[in-house]
Amino acid sequence: MNAHPKFIAADAAVDEAAISPLPNSRKVHVTGSRADIRVPMREISQADTPAGMGHEPNPPVFVYDTSGPYSDPAATIDIRKGLPALRAAWIEERNDTEKLTGPSSAYGRERLADSGLAQLRFDLARAPRRARAGANVTQMHYARRGIVTPEMEYVAIRENLRRAEYIESLRAAGPTGARMADLLGRQHRGESFGAAIPAEITPEFVRSEVARGRAIIPANINHPETEPMIIGRNFLVKINANIGNSAVTSSIGEEVEKMTWSIRWGGDTVMDLSTGKHIHETREWIVRNSPVPIGTVPIYQALEKVDGKAEDLTWEIFRDTLIEQAEQGVDYFTIHAGVRLPYIPMTAKRMTGIVSRGGSIMAKWCLAHHRESFLYERFEEICEIMKAYDVAFSLGDGLRPGSIYDANDEAQLSELRTLGELTQVAWKHDVQVMIEGPGHVPMQLIKENMELQLRDCHEAPFYTLGPLTTDIAPGYDHITSAIGAAQIGWYGTAMLCYVTPKEHLGLPNKKDVKDGIIAYKIAAHAADLAKGHPGAQIRDNALSKARFEFRWADQFNLGLDPDTAKDFHDETLPKDSMKTAHFCSMCGPHFCSMKITQDVRDYAEKSGVSAEQALTQGMQEKAVEFVRKGSEIYGKV
Amino acid sequence: MNAHPKFIAADAAVDEAAISPLPNSRKVHVTGSRADIRVPMREISQADTPAGMGHEPNPPVFVYDTSGPYSDPAATIDIRKGLPALRAAWIEERNDTEKLTGPSSAYGRERLADSGLAQLRFDLARAPRRARAGANVTQMHYARRGIVTPEMEYVAIRENLRRAEYIESLRAAGPTGARMADLLGRQHRGESFGAAIPAEITPEFVRSEVARGRAIIPANINHPETEPMIIGRNFLVKINANIGNSAVTSSIGEEVEKMTWSIRWGGDTVMDLSTGKHIHETREWIVRNSPVPIGTVPIYQALEKVDGKAEDLTWEIFRDTLIEQAEQGVDYFTIHAGVRLPYIPMTAKRMTGIVSRGGSIMAKWCLAHHRESFLYERFEEICEIMKAYDVAFSLGDGLRPGSIYDANDEAQLSELRTLGELTQVAWKHDVQVMIEGPGHVPMQLIKENMELQLRDCHEAPFYTLGPLTTDIAPGYDHITSAIGAAQIGWYGTAMLCYVTPKEHLGLPNKKDVKDGIIAYKIAAHAADLAKGHPGAQIRDNALSKARFEFRWADQFNLGLDPDTAKDFHDETLPKDSMKTAHFCSMCGPHFCSMKITQDVRDYAEKSGVSAEQALTQGMQEKAVEFVRKGSEIYGKV
Repeated sequence: MNAHPKFIAADAAVDEAAISPLPNSRKVHVTGSRADIRVPMREISQADTPAGMGHEPNPPVFVYDTSGPYSDPAATIDIRKGLPALRAAWIEERNDTEKLTGPSSAYGRERLADSGLAQLRFDLARAPRRARAGANVTQMHYARRGIVTPEMEYVAIRENLRRAEYIESLRAAGPTGARMADLLGRQHRGESFGAAIPAEITPEFVRSEVARGRAIIPANINHPETEPMIIGRNFLVKINANIGNSAVTSSIGEEVEKMTWSIRWGGDTVMDLSTGKHIHETREWIVRNSPVPIGTVPIYQALEKVDGKAEDLTWEIFRDTLIEQAEQGVDYFTIHAGVRLPYIPMTAKRMTGIVSRGGSIMAKWCLAHHRESFLYERFEEICEIMKAYDVAFSLGDGLRPGSIYDANDEAQLSELRTLGELTQVAWKHDVQVMIEGPGHVPMQLIKENMELQLRDCHEAPFYTLGPLTTDIAPGYDHITSAIGAAQIGWYGTAMLCYVTPKEHLGLPNKKDVKDGIIAYKIAAHAADLAKGHPGAQIRDNALSKARFEFRWADQFNLGLDPDTAKDFHDETLPKDSMKTAHFCSMCGPHFCSMKITQDVRDYAEKSGVSAEQALTQGMQEKAVEFVRKGSEIYGKV
Repeated sequence: MNAHPKFIAADAAVDEAAISPLPNSRKVHVTGSRADIRVPMREISQADTPAGMGHEPNPPVFVYDTSGPYSDPAATIDIRKGLPALRAAWIEERNDTEKLTGPSSAYGRERLADSGLAQLRFDLARAPRRARAGANVTQMHYARRGIVTPEMEYVAIRENLRRAEYIESLRAAGPTGARMADLLGRQHRGESFGAAIPAEITPEFVRSEVARGRAIIPANINHPETEPMIIGRNFLVKINANIGNSAVTSSIGEEVEKMTWSIRWGGDTVMDLSTGKHIHETREWIVRNSPVPIGTVPIYQALEKVDGKAEDLTWEIFRDTLIEQAEQGVDYFTIHAGVRLPYIPMTAKRMTGIVSRGGSIMAKWCLAHHRESFLYERFEEICEIMKAYDVAFSLGDGLRPGSIYDANDEAQLSELRTLGELTQVAWKHDVQVMIEGPGHVPMQLIKENMELQLRDCHEAPFYTLGPLTTDIAPGYDHITSAIGAAQIGWYGTAMLCYVTPKEHLGLPNKKDVKDGIIAYKIAAHAADLAKGHPGAQIRDNALSKARFEFRWADQFNLGLDPDTAKDFHDETLPKDSMKTAHFCSMCGPHFCSMKITQDVRDYAEKSGVSAEQALTQGMQEKAVEFVRKGSEIYGKV
């Protein structure tokens, strides 16, 4: 249980607890059509159902695993070397890229030449790649040409989570397992609002969704370390965690640790929002060590290059920044190309104006020059860069509402329509696109927001921050926003950007990051259930069965955060023996409703009649039998 | 700021921090048509808008105050004496009750006669009251006879929260305030699913809703200390907090402190779920010191009286328990009269059987005797007791689902229909009723559950536990359930029973209770906003404006938990001077999107054109002006 990967860190302070496997969990790999497609999952083993409740094994449950090699005791982690380049062969085989001799961005070359940075620099032996002249290396481009890439197959296996095999093993376990398997078949019908999730995800389905633009696989050719994942409303809802230093704090080692911490708890992608001094070097360390796609907001770095003076930004500086980051391996760029000059004055009437940093920067630039945004005007040129590395667009909502009052207003919805227009431009270039969304939106306006996004942006995946459903709870915005996130995820949002309890107040620490991620895993899973995602209920059912059977450890381990669940139980009933006790602290040992139910069920089974029969036949005779058997069945309660 | 009521406690350990007024908050009373109708509100004062942003006062905001005299520095609290009996005169004036010489329940008399309990006993000088023979003392009875009671007027004033006066003061503050007032008028339309909340709540509206059975005012004549409040879907959504010792822990002083802690953070009612030894005495202390209605589940105590053997329960013991508790002043009783014999076998097919304790007790009794539930059979007799004291029914959902799998199943919905049938019986007696609801329900089934409740229970107020929208997050069920609670509150639930992070795992401590309450205040408020409750958005707008204007202290103080918000801000920017800084830690001092927006707005205003004009006239000339004024407007950013 205490096994963990050998972690060789750049700085000494590595929290071993943060990289051990979760309790009773084992990393397994499902192999695809070729040996180098090895899809990771977390297998959670369970105890047997106790004798009094129909002794039987409970087969292990497989859950989606974002943690990469960090939770694999078989792996050796050396953050100075980075993760293995698992996609390298796939990229090379496609034969449409060329190795560069070094960074092709001016800034990349400048940083490389600066000997003063040698200490800070990640020692990357591998040269950056770029599409050969005239080539397009996006997953969308392959998909549209009918090619199923290894990335697509990987994603399909990953989304299926060995569901069919699990149900089979459940059936094989015995009568209770077989009943469980039947129960799974009786799952609640979801209400999918137009999403159509197949019972089994095939590689071909993945291809068709990517080709259609309804899903993206963020997978920069310069981030071969990434374990492919998909963002689209016909797949599991994903979550993003933000990390990043700021002018006020931080170090490189800390940022890498924030990334590994985020993916341990379920971050599907990580955005590096650093604004500090060594933004270029920090990013390299993060990308090289990240098994999940990395997103950035390139305008932040561009702004640093002009000493924070938005009006001094130029297309050339921005372009160079895109190339710099694309060659480092960033998988998606937030680009606020929808902040057009005519929309800016619409924000003057708002309660909270422009709250997006990227949006503010562009607004300032546009007003200062009285010119249309260069991001909007140069959009096709940006597409040319994106398709040379397969960087996906995350079209930023620079005019998102910063308060309930401003929700779904003219500025927000005007920008949304422009993002839809830009989506079609990007798709013309076979560049993958997702659309960022708000923000602060009261519950009754969330559906409208989702519907407008689907319509105006042609079903490109929606990627929303929250939304927060009220402004009155600073310190608890992971909750105000998890409410909105669950709802918008249900309506069709493909990825939810987390919000931590520190939102609006300060920089999140490790606890805040975890709290934000867990709140968002809850929202995403609640949405998957509501949409009727096949198999989403497997985990709920397994956990509820464990709860019902007083398998305390299984209840903890099947949950999103086994450590906290166990700690909470320990607070009231600390003894180890209590982890097998057939009662809980709410009611104490002498009275337990779960126990009584079990007695009711035992009785129904022992009497040899089904519940329905009992109803139709009348229960007179069984009652007699019950009272006779009573003391034996219930014992002392 | 450090003023707090003089608190004389039964035991020494009183946390002074827990009874001080919240920062910048002052208890005010709004007087009604008679001098003894004094409705408490919390007035939160704010700083002025700073000079650079259009200097102007920000009028104080009034929020609903559940904390009673505990947060009033003018009050002297002595928990040995209990709170003042503010409703005593109203009850007496009605001239339909009689003073008893002592408890009329056998158990009440027995406890009173036990000299060994003298130490534990609350010293109540006042005799219990009961309706005179043939009289009916329920608020519903008065309402149906066209009488507007002082309780109804109190409730009307309370629900209005001085909304009209606030908007007036906003208008008087200056141009920004006037704009704010206009903004309030431009509030988002809600989607109310049939609820119809008037812009101003009149006493007559309260009366008509109570008469119709669509709302209840839990107000036992033996709990004259209670500050009247209303539960109904055309009013603010309320929340309940559970307290109660268990076989495993607790003391009387602790239970009273849990109650005062719960109402400090916004608990609208408190349920005492004690199962311990001195259940009768504990309850007396809680009721005498509680300014909010107290609910109980009498079957718990009845079970203790038969040493935990459900099959030994009798109508006589239960009946005596109802009278015992009614004479102590309990305002509503959870009674699981819908757990009928034929429904019990339906639970054998479930994933998690019967999870309600009350439901389990009754199921066990029914099966053991093979008889219909005595609660169901004696329901009219129970009504006779309820109307003699004005105890409201909270018809318990003994067959609520304990897992996602079991949601909205046959057992649950059969019971719901029976609760509807019983509602009509209670209404025949003019007894107030609310209906308890689940439990665990995935998002897509919540609306159906609410609609069935409204239909089957004739719009009697719904009072739901959560629901939890997924089972996979033990340790975070305040969040899994806040998602469902916000949703069901929006659809029409009148009161939300909180869930703490410890749900399923252990007994909540003080932090858990607060976390549960705040999560539920968020859910209730998000629901009020979504329903379009007039004025709900006042607090969101005020807080967002404070946020936009960098009035940090006001942002904290207008929030649900000023202490935590301030602590979080302190973690990153601890200095006091930072509380007036025009930036936050996310972006640091050199870049701030809020600041840029302010600049944009300043610019628009200084240029003397409205946003619309800017758009239609074109912005060429203004851009010139902007660049010219640039350095002066933006300064160094």
